[in-house]
Amino acid sequence: MPDTSLLEVFESPSDAPFVIEHTSEEFTSVCPKTGHPDFGDVTIIYEPRPAKDGGICVELKSLKLYYQSFRNEGIFYEAVTNTIRDDLAGLMNPAWLVVRTDWKGRGGIKSTIRATSGDVPELWLV
Amino acid sequence: MPDTSLLEVFESPSDAPFVIEHTSEEFTSVCPKTGHPDFGDVTIIYEPRPAKDGGICVELKSLKLYYQSFRNEGIFYEAVTNTIRDDLAGLMNPAWLVVRTDWKGRGGIKSTIRATSGDVPELWLV
Amino acid sequence: MPDTSLLEVFESPSDAPFVIEHTSEEFTSVCPKTGHPDFGDVTIIYEPRPAKDGGICVELKSLKLYYQSFRNEGIFYEAVTNTIRDDLAGLMNPAWLVVRTDWKGRGGIKSTIRATSGDVPELWLV
Amino acid sequence: MPDTSLLEVFESPSDAPFVIEHTSEEFTSVCPKTGHPDFGDVTIIYEPRPAKDGGICVELKSLKLYYQSFRNEGIFYEAVTNTIRDDLAGLMNPAWLVVRTDWKGRGGIKSTIRATSGDVPELWLV
Amino acid sequence: MPDTSLLEVFESPSDAPFVIEHTSEEFTSVCPKTGHPDFGDVTIIYEPRPAKDGGICVELKSLKLYYQSFRNEGIFYEAVTNTIRDDLAGLMNPAWLVVRTDWKGRGGIKSTIRATSGDVPELWLV
Amino acid sequence: MPDTSLLEVFESPSDAPFVIEHTSEEFTSVCPKTGHPDFGDVTIIYEPRPAKDGGICVELKSLKLYYQSFRNEGIFYEAVTNTIRDDLAGLMNPAWLVVRTDWKGRGGIKSTIRATSGDVPELWLV
Amino acid sequence: MPDTSLLEVFESPSDAPFVIEHTSEEFTSVCPKTGHPDFGDVTIIYEPRPAKDGGICVELKSLKLYYQSFRNEGIFYEAVTNTIRDDLAGLMNPAWLVVRTDWKGRGGIKSTIRATSGDVPELWLV
Amino acid sequence: MPDTSLLEVFESPSDAPFVIEHTSEEFTSVCPKTGHPDFGDVTIIYEPRPAKDGGICVELKSLKLYYQSFRNEGIFYEAVTNTIRDDLAGLMNPAWLVVRTDWKGRGGIKSTIRATSGDVPELWLV
Amino acid sequence: MPDTSLLEVFESPSDAPFVIEHTSEEFTSVCPKTGHPDFGDVTIIYEPRPAKDGGICVELKSLKLYYQSFRNEGIFYEAVTNTIRDDLAGLMNPAWLVVRTDWKGRGGIKSTIRATSGDVPELWLV
Amino acid sequence: MPDTSLLEVFESPSDAPFVIEHTSEEFTSVCPKTGHPDFGDVTIIYEPRPAKDGGICVELKSLKLYYQSFRNEGIFYEAVTNTIRDDLAGLMNPAWLVVRTDWKGRGGIKSTIRATSGDVPELWLV
Repeated sequence: MPDTSLLEVFESPSDAPFVIEHTSEEFTSVCPKTGHPDFGDVTIIYEPRPAKDGGICVELKSLKLYYQSFRNEGIFYEAVTNTIRDDLAGLMNPAWLVVRTDWKGRGGIKSTIRATSGDVPELWLV
Repeated sequence: MPDTSLLEVFESPSDAPFVIEHTSEEFTSVCPKTGHPDFGDVTIIYEPRPAKDGGICVELKSLKLYYQSFRNEGIFYEAVTNTIRDDLAGLMNPAWLVVRTDWKGRGGIKSTIRATSGDVPELWLV
Repeated sequence: MPDTSLLEVFESPSDAPFVIEHTSEEFTSVCPKTGHPDFGDVTIIYEPRPAKDGGICVELKSLKLYYQSFRNEGIFYEAVTNTIRDDLAGLMNPAWLVVRTDWKGRGGIKSTIRATSGDVPELWLV
Repeated sequence: MPDTSLLEVFESPSDAPFVIEHTSEEFTSVCPKTGHPDFGDVTIIYEPRPAKDGGICVELKSLKLYYQSFRNEGIFYEAVTNTIRDDLAGLMNPAWLVVRTDWKGRGGIKSTIRATSGDVPELWLV
Repeated sequence: MPDTSLLEVFESPSDAPFVIEHTSEEFTSVCPKTGHPDFGDVTIIYEPRPAKDGGICVELKSLKLYYQSFRNEGIFYEAVTNTIRDDLAGLMNPAWLVVRTDWKGRGGIKSTIRATSGDVPELWLV
Repeated sequence: MPDTSLLEVFESPSDAPFVIEHTSEEFTSVCPKTGHPDFGDVTIIYEPRPAKDGGICVELKSLKLYYQSFRNEGIFYEAVTNTIRDDLAGLMNPAWLVVRTDWKGRGGIKSTIRATSGDVPELWLV
Repeated sequence: MPDTSLLEVFESPSDAPFVIEHTSEEFTSVCPKTGHPDFGDVTIIYEPRPAKDGGICVELKSLKLYYQSFRNEGIFYEAVTNTIRDDLAGLMNPAWLVVRTDWKGRGGIKSTIRATSGDVPELWLV
Repeated sequence: MPDTSLLEVFESPSDAPFVIEHTSEEFTSVCPKTGHPDFGDVTIIYEPRPAKDGGICVELKSLKLYYQSFRNEGIFYEAVTNTIRDDLAGLMNPAWLVVRTDWKGRGGIKSTIRATSGDVPELWLV
Repeated sequence: MPDTSLLEVFESPSDAPFVIEHTSEEFTSVCPKTGHPDFGDVTIIYEPRPAKDGGICVELKSLKLYYQSFRNEGIFYEAVTNTIRDDLAGLMNPAWLVVRTDWKGRGGIKSTIRATSGDVPELWLV
Repeated sequence: MPDTSLLEVFESPSDAPFVIEHTSEEFTSVCPKTGHPDFGDVTIIYEPRPAKDGGICVELKSLKLYYQSFRNEGIFYEAVTNTIRDDLAGLMNPAWLVVRTDWKGRGGIKSTIRATSGDVPELWLV
């Protein structure tokens, strides 16, 4: 079950704005309709708030373990994407955040879901 | 015959706006003029309304079955594209919806048809 | 249902040996286990017997119609491949024949089946 | 736990030799050393014995379910490969069988394991 | 109608063996079954006999005009290939000759036909 | 330990604005969480101030030695990127500076971090 | 310093011959001549002896740690390659073993070193 | 030593604006820090002034000889780029000029330097 | 007119066998039939005889001038190829020689002509 | 002037046969005919004799300096290739050695020269 307690953070190393992008190519969950496994890539892009304003970053190994907690969860693509967006936005309160999931074909259909938090610069929307 | 009763929905998992894209690479129908089968890709991109406003999403396996209901239907490319747009817009009442069909060559001619519903952001128009 | 009566032939235009290769990228049949449609490419390669020995070739439009007769047939990949091999070998009695089918992913699994008739030169086996 | 009872077979559709290749791009198991998930592609290539000699083929959906039974199993790459080879060779008694697994990077190391059963023609060894 | 009187030749410039390859990417004829135009590439490869033995070569502009004489001819792929082979082999009496035609998709089917004359070295057979 | 004393500079050879880009494909540091080595590409792009205003450039071999001083340092991706940005901005006081780090997969996750100093033209932001 | 005590093994899972290939894209050591770091890919390919004859395999995480023990070692490319060959051949006594190292450019020169143990099938020599 | 006396010019052949681009893939100079040779590509793009306003173009063979005069010169990348920009801008007084140098890896670092003269249209800046 | 007096040679620098390959991408002659220019690549590959046996090599700039002497010559592709073969074989008396010409499209037809002298190893025949 | 005194060697690290390949992409010398610089890639592949038989390897940095000693030497491609072969074969007395030089276009002509020493396995000849 998606477990936010696995997520760890560390203080942003800077007061200056900077942009972080992490792409996992090994995400898997389970389709709640058919019970078959789903496989996809999960990309997050975000700008932490300045360190002086309490800006924090998600630690990479804990992010991997958090993703692994979806492994046997029955959950739709759309809910995976919004859950990750809500969990990470809640955890880090970033200046802005993009979550994009790209799913392998299922019944001949490939899917991409995009969710955002805050005011994302247009550069990062596609 | 295209059968909208096959389509199932689920409540949008979020009040925040997000964008969903599904591409089927296994669509086939029948040309009403020649009786020969047509083959194409069908892509839909849409933004559901917020959950609190009754926003809903189309379920993926039901979408596959709905597409399969065109299998032996004699119908032009243009009608396929508009039918899917009308059926999905009527079903989900999304903030906006794009339907794009890309057809394999027939007599040396390849075709692409695009139809939309609502106010589609420019980013998704191509 | 696969219908060999659709197949038409014409006399080989030559007494000299030559090699014919036809690849259809629009083959579809139905999985007998799940009822879902399958999509694949079908390639045949063959050498007709000399005209003086009654060598014949399959006519291309009739081959297309024969392939279309599988459209609503519930039949495994392996049987599709062997059926086409048997039907065409029986029809044309060629010097040799290769049938290769390449199937799109089904449940995340892509498949290729190869069947032959007669003594195929090694050049054409892959 | 790898469950061979999930595997179903059907009688080979032909007395003539032919070659079957299935590639799954969605295999996952668990590393017994670290507890982290492993991801890989699994390819099997085999020639069933003639139908008249009791030749049989593995059914594709059952093969998918069998692969899914490794999902939460702690097992090394080498054992995955040999287990699939042993299970399928035991099930089908094919003329010959190749199993190849290609694993995504783990700690910066990518791996490929190849196991065979019977007398595999050189064409299929790489 | 294919018109061999358009073909012109010139004496081979050498007694030593050498190999000539011409590929036309602008061949068109008409399907005798449907009346629709066919489009393809035509490649010929041959070794003229030594000049001292009366070896001759086909002149390139005349070859182009000869190919253009098929433009409104209703003729199967197989017959095009064998006709060109027969016409050029009869004209030049080369040491050996390969004719290969690659046809664009017709009803979703792409075709390649290969015909030869004389003892073609294996190097030139594919 | 990152050692800015290794960095050497030379006076900008021009009063006119110009743009310098250096990409190192051999950066390595150590993950402070797991103790395992990290590998990445580090790109810097900057515009030195005019020579008449004291503009300076970083010398390339000294930049290599500075990068090598991270070799056995336990430090997060985000801190590597901001440290390089701070060290180089402090050293050179450039008109503007972009630092981009692209990290190889770690636990199936690839990362890119971007930090800037000064008013970077949009052309250089992606 | 290269530390073979880091290497762990497990019993081969099979009496049948099979082939294992591991490629590390994150190898680094130090040039003993210049003191600068070297970066390369290390590939090993081997066939374990049958389990019944005491055949064993190297465990992947321990292999990674063994490679990491070269990180600060001053050692030539040629010695890296032969050391890994000797250490792994001594550890596993495999039927045969190939070690190939591909090094990034150093002073404009790229290098590849290949070493073997036992009677390597020609298929695996390049 | 860079020798501008080698450069020859000719009158622009037009009063209309036009754009000239020359790319040399065989530039070499010497690193003033290490004494080792550097290798790079040098691209110049410029618009001559109208002929009626005294516009002139640099002659190509003289440009090659001018580049060759850097062969044994100890000079930084940045100075090479600005020297060429200054020499050519001084020689031709063009409407605008871009000089871009792309240097092969040195110590694992690849570099690109861009310098301009006059008001360069954005199209030519990257 | 092809002018062999332009060709210069120098003594082979070795008694050991070695192989020389020169490819000109700027050959042009004139079609004797239409008067239009032809453009092609000319490749020669040869092994000089040992220096002690009087082995000689063709000098590269003189080869370029010799090729340029075909510029206004009306001559067929086949004759170009055999003339170069005859001229160079007569000049150098090499152990063996290959001449290959690849001609750009003329009337939609691309051509390749290959001629040899002496006993060419199979490796160099394609 | 090519200076073999720059070359340094070290004892082969193994009694077992192994293969070493070094490719320099930054070789330059001067054409003795025109005085213009030549640029090329130089690849050497060799097998040192066993350490117990006095086998030695060339050290990489010294190889780079040796190549740099050709920088201002007027010398033909053929002589460069044979000189490097003779110098390295004389220095190391390897089991076998291949030297291949690939030269950039000069007057529109690209060249490749190959020289060998000892009995080179066919695998390494191309």
